[in-house]
Amino acid sequence: MKKKFLFAAFLICGAISSVAEEKPRYKDASLPVEERVEDLLRRMTLHEKVLQLQNNSTSDINAIENTYKGGSPGSVHEMSKSAKEAALLFNKMQEYLLTQNRLGIPALVTVEGINGVTQNGCTIFPQAIAQGSTFNPELVEEMSRAIGRESHVIGIRQLQCPVLDIARDLRWGRVEETFGEDPFLIGEMGTAFVRGSQAEGVGAMPKHFVAHGTPTGGLNCASVPGGERELRNLYAYPFAKVIQNADPVSIMGCYSAYDGIPVAHSAHFMTDLLRGELGFKGFVYSDWGSVDRLKSFHFAAETSEEAARKALIAGIDMDVYDWAYQTLEDQVNKGILDEAYVDRACRRVLAAKFRLGVFDDPYGDPDKVDKVVRSKAHVALAKKVADESIVLLENKNDILPLDLKKYKSIAVLGPNSNYGVAGDYGWVEFDNRECVTLFDGLKQAVGKDVQVNQLDGCDWWSQKDDGIAAAVELARKSDIAIVAVGTRSVWLGRGAKGKNVTSGEGFDLSSLDLPGKQLDLLKAVKATGKPVVVVLITGKPLVMTWAKEHADAVVLQFYGGEQQGNAMADVLLGKVNPSGRLNVSFPRSTGNTPCYYNYYPSDREQVFDQGGSYEEPNGHYIFEKPYALWNFGRGLSYTDFEYTDVHLSDTVFSGQGKLSVTLKVKNTGRRDGKEVVQLYVRDKFSSVVMPIQQLKAFKKVEVPAGGEVEVRLEMPIDELAFYNETLHRLVEPGEFEIQVGHASDDIVFRKTIVVK
Amino acid sequence: MKKKFLFAAFLICGAISSVAEEKPRYKDASLPVEERVEDLLRRMTLHEKVLQLQNNSTSDINAIENTYKGGSPGSVHEMSKSAKEAALLFNKMQEYLLTQNRLGIPALVTVEGINGVTQNGCTIFPQAIAQGSTFNPELVEEMSRAIGRESHVIGIRQLQCPVLDIARDLRWGRVEETFGEDPFLIGEMGTAFVRGSQAEGVGAMPKHFVAHGTPTGGLNCASVPGGERELRNLYAYPFAKVIQNADPVSIMGCYSAYDGIPVAHSAHFMTDLLRGELGFKGFVYSDWGSVDRLKSFHFAAETSEEAARKALIAGIDMDVYDWAYQTLEDQVNKGILDEAYVDRACRRVLAAKFRLGVFDDPYGDPDKVDKVVRSKAHVALAKKVADESIVLLENKNDILPLDLKKYKSIAVLGPNSNYGVAGDYGWVEFDNRECVTLFDGLKQAVGKDVQVNQLDGCDWWSQKDDGIAAAVELARKSDIAIVAVGTRSVWLGRGAKGKNVTSGEGFDLSSLDLPGKQLDLLKAVKATGKPVVVVLITGKPLVMTWAKEHADAVVLQFYGGEQQGNAMADVLLGKVNPSGRLNVSFPRSTGNTPCYYNYYPSDREQVFDQGGSYEEPNGHYIFEKPYALWNFGRGLSYTDFEYTDVHLSDTVFSGQGKLSVTLKVKNTGRRDGKEVVQLYVRDKFSSVVMPIQQLKAFKKVEVPAGGEVEVRLEMPIDELAFYNETLHRLVEPGEFEIQVGHASDDIVFRKTIVVK
Repeated sequence: MKKKFLFAAFLICGAISSVAEEKPRYKDASLPVEERVEDLLRRMTLHEKVLQLQNNSTSDINAIENTYKGGSPGSVHEMSKSAKEAALLFNKMQEYLLTQNRLGIPALVTVEGINGVTQNGCTIFPQAIAQGSTFNPELVEEMSRAIGRESHVIGIRQLQCPVLDIARDLRWGRVEETFGEDPFLIGEMGTAFVRGSQAEGVGAMPKHFVAHGTPTGGLNCASVPGGERELRNLYAYPFAKVIQNADPVSIMGCYSAYDGIPVAHSAHFMTDLLRGELGFKGFVYSDWGSVDRLKSFHFAAETSEEAARKALIAGIDMDVYDWAYQTLEDQVNKGILDEAYVDRACRRVLAAKFRLGVFDDPYGDPDKVDKVVRSKAHVALAKKVADESIVLLENKNDILPLDLKKYKSIAVLGPNSNYGVAGDYGWVEFDNRECVTLFDGLKQAVGKDVQVNQLDGCDWWSQKDDGIAAAVELARKSDIAIVAVGTRSVWLGRGAKGKNVTSGEGFDLSSLDLPGKQLDLLKAVKATGKPVVVVLITGKPLVMTWAKEHADAVVLQFYGGEQQGNAMADVLLGKVNPSGRLNVSFPRSTGNTPCYYNYYPSDREQVFDQGGSYEEPNGHYIFEKPYALWNFGRGLSYTDFEYTDVHLSDTVFSGQGKLSVTLKVKNTGRRDGKEVVQLYVRDKFSSVVMPIQQLKAFKKVEVPAGGEVEVRLEMPIDELAFYNETLHRLVEPGEFEIQVGHASDDIVFRKTIVVK
Repeated sequence: MKKKFLFAAFLICGAISSVAEEKPRYKDASLPVEERVEDLLRRMTLHEKVLQLQNNSTSDINAIENTYKGGSPGSVHEMSKSAKEAALLFNKMQEYLLTQNRLGIPALVTVEGINGVTQNGCTIFPQAIAQGSTFNPELVEEMSRAIGRESHVIGIRQLQCPVLDIARDLRWGRVEETFGEDPFLIGEMGTAFVRGSQAEGVGAMPKHFVAHGTPTGGLNCASVPGGERELRNLYAYPFAKVIQNADPVSIMGCYSAYDGIPVAHSAHFMTDLLRGELGFKGFVYSDWGSVDRLKSFHFAAETSEEAARKALIAGIDMDVYDWAYQTLEDQVNKGILDEAYVDRACRRVLAAKFRLGVFDDPYGDPDKVDKVVRSKAHVALAKKVADESIVLLENKNDILPLDLKKYKSIAVLGPNSNYGVAGDYGWVEFDNRECVTLFDGLKQAVGKDVQVNQLDGCDWWSQKDDGIAAAVELARKSDIAIVAVGTRSVWLGRGAKGKNVTSGEGFDLSSLDLPGKQLDLLKAVKATGKPVVVVLITGKPLVMTWAKEHADAVVLQFYGGEQQGNAMADVLLGKVNPSGRLNVSFPRSTGNTPCYYNYYPSDREQVFDQGGSYEEPNGHYIFEKPYALWNFGRGLSYTDFEYTDVHLSDTVFSGQGKLSVTLKVKNTGRRDGKEVVQLYVRDKFSSVVMPIQQLKAFKKVEVPAGGEVEVRLEMPIDELAFYNETLHRLVEPGEFEIQVGHASDDIVFRKTIVVK
């Protein structure tokens, strides 16, 4: 036995050494990732390893040699080129790295991709907030696969998305990048997005870990107040779900501090929580400049060296933008940093590249770019996502869909009525050449018998009101007015426009009222006596209290991508029956916030013993009720749905297993339509306070007019778990009310289950 | 030795048993409190002990026998009687308890006392928020002694105040009950208040423990998001200071949850933090009904029994209002609650009564009530506190003090111009009979040569504007208009007026704009072209952006007690030189909040590497800057002060000792005046994020015109401590900038010290 073993070992060693000479083991695609990583790592110099922890950019195809000088960076970030130009550039870069770098380590080409690949000419899908309002994760996964295909053909292998932040402070400019306010919905959408792109060999990067989305004052990057329980019960929840269900290749950290700790220098958050508790296996990418900002923003490090050291030890594997990690080599050499931390981070970065197959084939396919990028199928998919994202909020006297026999002339008004808004982090050339505006879409859709005329009336931000009179005049001459108001976001790569932009990163609002003179425009048009349909094209909820009361209809379009105008035209005319649902509640006023639906029972003075109930809470501000204008889950259709035969698989559970709820959804109207069946849970008594309602399952189904479909909703009992007073995660025995309904505030079925 | 000892012991035992027969040891005032407590406790039945953990009330002097039926409650709460009537009632009750109760245990008579004793006829001092704006803790201590004297003579031995909550969400109705937004100032004022009343044998009860003052949405009792670090660095700080410096007899718990934990059922907060970390030795009084609300508000207990058990074990010693603790006896008898918890709580309640001398003399002195209550000296003190609380915010062209040679006719306008507002928890009969309104005060102060006419113009809350025209007409006919706008609070005991009230508990605002038509009134009066002095009489900061820009002067009067009109008249006419300073920052708009001065560097995008500095931060909302309209510490005078010869005792410290800063304050103007010298600290680098500035010392000094005084400010180096990432409290070595100035944003001297 012993002899045999020695002999075998000898043979293996011999094999290794002979392969090492011909083809190193790390280049052998048949070997496990871990083995390839270790083989490569032991060959790398400290300098080479530190390079893997950094990002570079490559703008000039003729300057590649000069940019890299034989070194290979961890990732490369380069956007806003034409798709084909980018593909050629990345291929040349990878070829250089594979042949001219000592070890032939390719780079991970990384771009933004929240609503499409950020090279010019790629398909522009609706913004994340609009993806969320589809309530259709399957559709989002399809979209993400399309984005993955466009990425891969260009040679892009990692996307800096999706955003898993929770939209709770609506002043924050980045609300548009989120999937909404609900952790469960975000978890489902995030899982769909990650699965989609990663199925195409393109890594996804959920962000911003952790709790970044509720900054104090709504001001970007501000600290987030919160404790360890809320961290887990709320903020980490979507990350936990996505890590568990979709295994993302990477995660992005964040700029902010949580309970006074800058997240990027805290092993507590970036290692113990992220890896230890949530089980994350990939690598951590810093937010841009967040490492050096430990010094310049948080004043928690006195030098860039200290910032880099703290961040690396905490668990930030790759530092992007600020070059603080350039100091790591020197710090190891000086003996103030253990090289083991560099190795740990380097291992993780290399593992991602092996896992994605970048070592084995880092190339895009420039010849196929024209065929894949912005293919008819992808554009049609962009239209479908846009269709499903539109939320019909008010429709008095069924004025919608528009009866074109009645309305022969339409005034299309408002600053967003002939303008395409891609949304922030679109980061590409995006103008009316590529985008169908509402005016474009409507003109085309109504045909020649209906007159459609357009005027802005006012802009989207200033106090100038000299265009309102003409808009009113046009409305007066028309049979109906459609007024498109809302926000505009910047295309980051094309130069921010300062105060003209009203949504997006760095553009936070201290007032949620319609910016500029837009409300005056609405009021003036309404005063003509003509029917008024308000179209809100926006990146975030705004105060629409006047419109709810006075407009004949209100239709919400979160930034709808390049097909936005076609989608809205089809909804207005009834070619598409609206099926979007509110993924963020709308506030009554700026000060009547937060207005999210999943508040704690105590948070709106919901006192049962003082005459309230949780259907009709006894809460107060003096001059307002502290509830949303339109609540989470809301959205009308041109038809009606009835639920019957609601059946629970069981009402007593042991703490494991799952609850299945089946029901029949009948379309009682005369149009085909899609319904989103929603299941909420209320924990009736719990040792720590729990939200008054929590979405725990939903399903979008198409039901033909007069037809009926059976729907099954499933909820693992484990979804009832929370972190208790001692931060122990458990399903606490007791009663839970299961609520099934059309919206969070339109529950049609309630039944109590018991967990023993 | 042994024999001697035995003999001595025998003698002592003999003494005990003989005293027990004649006069029980617990009735011996010469024995230590602990000994008396233990002696009494061992004599008590379970029923008697449980009674000590509850409160009762006694409204009818003829029904005492019927109310108590021989039992003695822990405390008795009874308000809104005349002072004398109350004194007679309490004496009769105590006499009953001392003679008819089996063990002769007196009750602790407890009332509200935030701005005076809540029996009719007692002196009404300015509200807590106005006490805070005096920046004069010595004066507040003097006031609290007066309140203590009025209490004691009536037989009241415990006050349910001061409030140590931190005013961070200005929508909250109870902002008026706080000392302001700064934890250090609150700590100083709280210490002064507790020392004052306790020096008169009347226990104080700091509240609401803990972190109650930042409810989500500004809605009363809503949960507070926050972590363990912020809990200690911010919310617990004033409690720590007051416990350490003034040893309060009791503490009140709170209704709210912190990081998802209802505070009232958590031993973590109510025992480990309060007693273990902060060293509290007294007893804990529940907030009214907060025990049962564990069931009905937080849904954290299924029954009142469970709520009572959890609260008692957590550390709530006395349960008030909801009777949940009535179940304790039964629970002990059933074996589901250990009697040791009852004993623990009972010990603490008894100890308070012994400590305060209530066992030895529980009586007030009805015959002296008329002499002590609302004595001339107390009324003069109320005037002095009111004088020092007024904050002059704007004074264009030195329009104030008013030149009566120039202004021969004055229009006194606005809903608060002839109305007395005591402030919430005044809880007494309070009307113009007892209170000098602005109109009253001014009429009297100007003498006969000046005409003073008054009109409300509009009310303080409704949309009715039909009185504005007449007010404008009056302004037009006068030489100057003084317009008093603001909020009104309810007298809780006299029936809440629902929506008519705009400040106080349960009256939260979703908008911080001037309620009703008050801004329209200001604009209309301004449009006359007459000079306009805006007097803001309010319980909280409101949005005064228009007034700052357009009024000739703005004078702030936080609810000023019964002498409010005299104080304001004296300030307007220059008999009193205003010396109040802002203890709460004023917001530019409702959505531009929070606006407190002590924010984290990251919280207003204060990025040094992007062209900002912390004097001129590079922060943003799109349409506004995220800074206060008027900042913490601001306040003008009719004279000017210059600082010279600023001297630091040292610039290098070991982590102990104290920093002394001396300076000369010169009054360079022509009027005597009071200046508040303020010392702030900035921790230049810290392992956890620390506020951009923190007040750490201040001193109010009177300086005669042309004169100069030397001021010494002292700061223990221990004040630089914070709780770090592992919740360890320490002074972290490094550099700290010492800032001395007139206000948080008017620093005239900066110097760096080093802690090694």
